[in-house]
Amino acid sequence: MDKLNEYRIKVKHLLTKYLQYKPSYGDVEVEQIFDNEHDHYQILSVGWNNQKRIYGPIVHLDIKNEKIWIQQNTTEADIALELMEMGVPKQDIVIGFHTPKMRYLSGFGVG
Amino acid sequence: MDKLNEYRIKVKHLLTKYLQYKPSYGDVEVEQIFDNEHDHYQILSVGWNNQKRIYGPIVHLDIKNEKIWIQQNTTEADIALELMEMGVPKQDIVIGFHTPKMRYLSGFGVG
Repeated sequence: MDKLNEYRIKVKHLLTKYLQYKPSYGDVEVEQIFDNEHDHYQILSVGWNNQKRIYGPIVHLDIKNEKIWIQQNTTEADIALELMEMGVPKQDIVIGFHTPKMRYLSGFGVG
Repeated sequence: MDKLNEYRIKVKHLLTKYLQYKPSYGDVEVEQIFDNEHDHYQILSVGWNNQKRIYGPIVHLDIKNEKIWIQQNTTEADIALELMEMGVPKQDIVIGFHTPKMRYLSGFGVG
């Protein structure tokens, strides 16, 4: 299998797991927003907890130039570590929310 | 054309317009995340303005039970009005970020 298809399968497999993390409070849905054409993959919570609006991406991964970009992660999980445990090399993982300068120092991909 | 397909075309047409609203500052991309299978449609800004991370959905529309839900709108545009001008009846538009109680009072769809 080529690398792009392998990464698509791994990214979707990882995110699908987090779909189950529905909050126990309120009336909140966890949406799966997978754009296979543009390689943007996001799960997001949306709903209400009493009168309070709940809205926001939980985890968001992109694939660009055969690298996996972690654009957002509001969980306590180490998504980069999970990707490495699934066989993705460290240099193919870009921590999008680290500054480009920090990326050079971390050993992860620089984008 | 059936209503669901009509609404899919209208939602995507509307959001595609906002893809051009790339900020003039920093290094920011506007992503199109369209999940045709689950009917979740979002555009989102991601990148950097100097050392500051820029990240967040700009507009997010869902189609559920043949109604269009406005889940997020960080623009100054009146997305509900734009949908009505495209021929979507008011009762088929749900303002997701209004409480269910407010929806009853506004004349828009209640979900």
